[in-house]
Amino acid sequence: MAGPPRRARRRLALPLLCLLLQAATAVLFAVFVRYDREADPALWPRGNHSSAHNEFYFRYPSFQDVHTMVFLGFGFLMAFLQRYGFSSVGFTFLLAAFALQWSTLTQGFLHAFHGGHIHVGVESMINADFCAGAVLISFGAVLGKTGPAQLLLMALLEVALFGINEFVLLSLLGVKDAGGSMTIHTFGAYFGLVLSRVLYRPELEKSKHRQGSIYHSDLFAMIGTIFLWIFWPSFNSAPTPLGDGQHRTVLNTYYSLTASTLSTFALSALVGRDGRLDMVHVQNAALAGGVVVGTASEMMLTPFGALAAGFLAGTVSTMGYKFFTPILESKFKVQDTCGVHNLHGMPGVLGALVGVLVAGLATHEAYGDGLQSVFPLIAAGQRSATSQAMYQLFGMFVTLTLASVGGAVGGCILKLPFLDAPPDSQCYEDRVYWEVPGEHEDEAQGPLKEEELDTQA
Amino acid sequence: MAGPPRRARRRLALPLLCLLLQAATAVLFAVFVRYDREADPALWPRGNHSSAHNEFYFRYPSFQDVHTMVFLGFGFLMAFLQRYGFSSVGFTFLLAAFALQWSTLTQGFLHAFHGGHIHVGVESMINADFCAGAVLISFGAVLGKTGPAQLLLMALLEVALFGINEFVLLSLLGVKDAGGSMTIHTFGAYFGLVLSRVLYRPELEKSKHRQGSIYHSDLFAMIGTIFLWIFWPSFNSAPTPLGDGQHRTVLNTYYSLTASTLSTFALSALVGRDGRLDMVHVQNAALAGGVVVGTASEMMLTPFGALAAGFLAGTVSTMGYKFFTPILESKFKVQDTCGVHNLHGMPGVLGALVGVLVAGLATHEAYGDGLQSVFPLIAAGQRSATSQAMYQLFGMFVTLTLASVGGAVGGCILKLPFLDAPPDSQCYEDRVYWEVPGEHEDEAQGPLKEEELDTQA
Amino acid sequence: MAGPPRRARRRLALPLLCLLLQAATAVLFAVFVRYDREADPALWPRGNHSSAHNEFYFRYPSFQDVHTMVFLGFGFLMAFLQRYGFSSVGFTFLLAAFALQWSTLTQGFLHAFHGGHIHVGVESMINADFCAGAVLISFGAVLGKTGPAQLLLMALLEVALFGINEFVLLSLLGVKDAGGSMTIHTFGAYFGLVLSRVLYRPELEKSKHRQGSIYHSDLFAMIGTIFLWIFWPSFNSAPTPLGDGQHRTVLNTYYSLTASTLSTFALSALVGRDGRLDMVHVQNAALAGGVVVGTASEMMLTPFGALAAGFLAGTVSTMGYKFFTPILESKFKVQDTCGVHNLHGMPGVLGALVGVLVAGLATHEAYGDGLQSVFPLIAAGQRSATSQAMYQLFGMFVTLTLASVGGAVGGCILKLPFLDAPPDSQCYEDRVYWEVPGEHEDEAQGPLKEEELDTQA
Repeated sequence: MAGPPRRARRRLALPLLCLLLQAATAVLFAVFVRYDREADPALWPRGNHSSAHNEFYFRYPSFQDVHTMVFLGFGFLMAFLQRYGFSSVGFTFLLAAFALQWSTLTQGFLHAFHGGHIHVGVESMINADFCAGAVLISFGAVLGKTGPAQLLLMALLEVALFGINEFVLLSLLGVKDAGGSMTIHTFGAYFGLVLSRVLYRPELEKSKHRQGSIYHSDLFAMIGTIFLWIFWPSFNSAPTPLGDGQHRTVLNTYYSLTASTLSTFALSALVGRDGRLDMVHVQNAALAGGVVVGTASEMMLTPFGALAAGFLAGTVSTMGYKFFTPILESKFKVQDTCGVHNLHGMPGVLGALVGVLVAGLATHEAYGDGLQSVFPLIAAGQRSATSQAMYQLFGMFVTLTLASVGGAVGGCILKLPFLDAPPDSQCYEDRVYWEVPGEHEDEAQGPLKEEELDTQA
Repeated sequence: MAGPPRRARRRLALPLLCLLLQAATAVLFAVFVRYDREADPALWPRGNHSSAHNEFYFRYPSFQDVHTMVFLGFGFLMAFLQRYGFSSVGFTFLLAAFALQWSTLTQGFLHAFHGGHIHVGVESMINADFCAGAVLISFGAVLGKTGPAQLLLMALLEVALFGINEFVLLSLLGVKDAGGSMTIHTFGAYFGLVLSRVLYRPELEKSKHRQGSIYHSDLFAMIGTIFLWIFWPSFNSAPTPLGDGQHRTVLNTYYSLTASTLSTFALSALVGRDGRLDMVHVQNAALAGGVVVGTASEMMLTPFGALAAGFLAGTVSTMGYKFFTPILESKFKVQDTCGVHNLHGMPGVLGALVGVLVAGLATHEAYGDGLQSVFPLIAAGQRSATSQAMYQLFGMFVTLTLASVGGAVGGCILKLPFLDAPPDSQCYEDRVYWEVPGEHEDEAQGPLKEEELDTQA
Repeated sequence: MAGPPRRARRRLALPLLCLLLQAATAVLFAVFVRYDREADPALWPRGNHSSAHNEFYFRYPSFQDVHTMVFLGFGFLMAFLQRYGFSSVGFTFLLAAFALQWSTLTQGFLHAFHGGHIHVGVESMINADFCAGAVLISFGAVLGKTGPAQLLLMALLEVALFGINEFVLLSLLGVKDAGGSMTIHTFGAYFGLVLSRVLYRPELEKSKHRQGSIYHSDLFAMIGTIFLWIFWPSFNSAPTPLGDGQHRTVLNTYYSLTASTLSTFALSALVGRDGRLDMVHVQNAALAGGVVVGTASEMMLTPFGALAAGFLAGTVSTMGYKFFTPILESKFKVQDTCGVHNLHGMPGVLGALVGVLVAGLATHEAYGDGLQSVFPLIAAGQRSATSQAMYQLFGMFVTLTLASVGGAVGGCILKLPFLDAPPDSQCYEDRVYWEVPGEHEDEAQGPLKEEELDTQA
């Protein structure tokens, strides 16, 4: 008799939550959200400015690269699991779509609230996508072990905390973090890891046979990896000041990524059985070069510094997958499906530290007149470089704290029973939430039997 | 004895048509097509303008997004069928490549014919890609039931009619339809649906077992979906006036799509068996938010208006897949393979109506000096907002009429016997037109036997 | 007893080479590489220039398209083999990442070495990606028959020679070759083909059963094809002069590609068994239109000229796959896995000849003031158009010579025994270099047995 109520729960939890959240954001949009000056026909100063100077033309191509990373990159990267491709791509789609709306509001209230209205434009779109990226990083930690209703609630909480953390760092502490080593990667990773700790499943062994990849699922994941890799320079540079700032950020990220790719292949073969390469490393650790320069890539990191940082990140990340992930589960009871600790956690913290170092070395000589746009507080004489470095470091600890507290709270909320979590024996399995066709022409895999779904205690 | 002539037909219909059409367009290009002022080294006013002001820089990134949507987005979206991926992607490739050439000519004659020449540049490329999009929408309605020679003839007719319809709406009636709710989606959908009606196959049941997806074909389709979704803001904004116009169009489309995604997930789970999500809905209905703001996204739709329109479109589209598609086949004898009625037809008409509404509400106050670029006839005092709304509505009926007549004529042409349509028992099957390797290493699936291919009456 | 040393070799060759090469380029970066004026905060002339005029905004969108082609396009295009997708995508990733670093140095020393430093910016990024493209073309010729350590050494040599050849053509001979018909396609193809000749494997028949595609691997390859096709206009135009030059290059490439697509479909069906289309042709020959206008697309090729060139290239390329590739192997002992001779070799040479023709026809009348930017030496009166044409032709022979000599030397180096080439019976097999999961859920394909791997003489 457990079947019907469970079916009813599943039938209603997700749609009700979607409709409720959509209704809420729509009302808030109606009351608060307006086009900004660059998008409003009545506000754009037609006489004084050529349309060619609309901010749109300097940010939109980067925005589209970021948008591709968030929806396609993250979605397919997580599709490596053999029977969880629909959920990886589909829930990424759902979560990110909701996060864009909700973070437009939360970030808007905190950063762009003027005269009772939130003003939106290409910059708010970039920021909303960034926030969605953090949510998807957390999703990676709990991938396969959470249902869509749980994930929506996670996003609801995380987006709000992301905005607060970002506000504290960027607006209150004057920390620089354009590409989000701290605000996106460190925050998203530790929020997700702590949340995964709270949702620890001692009986997850029951789904172990579904936790690996199959040949073609690894190729789908590589689509995600490659798009993340090629567009990461756009990610880190999307919100930096126009001109040489964006240009430099792109160069640093580009070099860093080439180095993390080389170190990942080197280390993967070195520690692999019979010297063989491991797809998990290539899919993930090769990207660590983008994470590690998230804070410092707009600074005078130098091309060599970018190579060094990327090399280090690829190394740490590959070693993490090989040696640390098993310990994380066995000792710390953190089941980290995608290894976000290795791709976003450690490289994020490392990136914050690289930022501390490079900020501490900032001189008027190296930055010239550009110091104003990279470190306005140093240029204005309000801070020394050392002091800026200390603020950067403090920002990292704030991020770790907020992420951990948020993840713990989130984990408790996600344990609410009506949210339809998958049973231990049905983790990493699309059929719990999706109509799934067979693998082959002649085969039609039926849905799960009720008893399979109702085994959860 | 039916075999040899049939083989001969197939061998010759496609190549002859390709060569003939290519020869014809090449001759017309030689006589008529010239670079426009922005692309011709002798015409570009080198003294007066910086190269930085070349239209190229303001439109090319958007063009590339549109190009990606047309070739990759549509192609892979239609690759959801288990044994029709080669045809979906391959015929999309062929049809769109031909449509680009042919519509450069037809649109050129109607819109950019000066001094005996058609002038081409980045704007003509965008318009040609738009026209190819309409052809691919129609392709979706007859997917799996038509051969490549038939499809090329369909494109030949549809491109010409598309140009005429667009000319009537934009140039004669002064209708606004930047993102093509009417000219692209409504036109393409109803052209294809009427054509599919004329080609109705009562015996299609014989190929029913091939009409669904398999696990990985659904993931390939999601590549198409995601690229369409992320680049749709570029699609709607590609031809709008520079500056705040493009900026606003992008914002509206972006918000509308997030809302159609949320409503699609909500409704799909609500009507699904045991509350499960359906990939067909996620792949298609989530995109309806882009279609529904095709007309109104450059107007003062407001961010809230965008959310509301997108939500409505996702709802209507999902309900359409669930409840209306079966009726369309059983009652109206329209076999709509991809459900273009749900993704392009109904949301297109809805988008036209949203355009009627928003145009009717246009005021000088809301648009300021920008009224000139959005509604030049209202700004010039030649039309009231209400009058503009009526023209918009009339444009929709013109489109529906031309599309239906065109589809009917097209269907009759496509019935010509030498065009090598697949037999009822071999629909949705790549092997009819392609050399197909096996599914696995150890398996080499032979070609169809002659008797399989010659079962058509 | 052969097992352990072989395992040890494999374990060490790749990681040592990666680490060594990374260390070397890092040291060279530290000593020589600096941000250029447009990316350095202290050098950018803040007072005189708006940030909006940073070269970044005119080149970065094109760069990202090129970047996508190199990493995603080439990688997935080569993933058509049934059991070599990890290697195709993965080694593309590794090789290109290394090539970017190394060619930043080699091209920098030859083209952008001022005051003891190499200055890098968006243009050096484009050029480095171009060089990586040439390396990947060569990779296509030896795909499946070489290990990653061999490939890295190949890249080491080829990148250096690429830089020299490019320097001779562009800087010494004043040859125009923006899209690289000669410097990229002809060079990469003949380097790879001669290298493949030197590495000829008479016993390759042992791996024949793995040399074809399977259904889904062909679809993965189409992802590569489509991205290469849609972004090729950006490839050819990325380094051309700003303004009408880029605009015209894009138009020509766009038209040429549509024509090569039509001729490929026509010819493929014409020569196919029972008139069926062949995926190999569609995946490759349809792209020949981009290669064939690599030299001439910035010139006054005219839209008709672009169609004609593309049509010719698609025809030659398809015929090459059908008739010439078998001869190349049987008569010339060149085993060309991806048919780079058909996609890059012949169309590259053809493209050089189209460039000779169009350069020879250059007149002051046709180019107006733009002659200065397309043919500066003709504009300055230092060369006649005919003389420029002769230089173009000479450049082609220089390229063929350098590529052939380089490929021969490279082949000898790659025969060094410690580089861990795959045995004849294990070509086109991912398991030699990768941990490979099963094809299906219930199957875990074990690694190769030692005896399988140690069958090489």
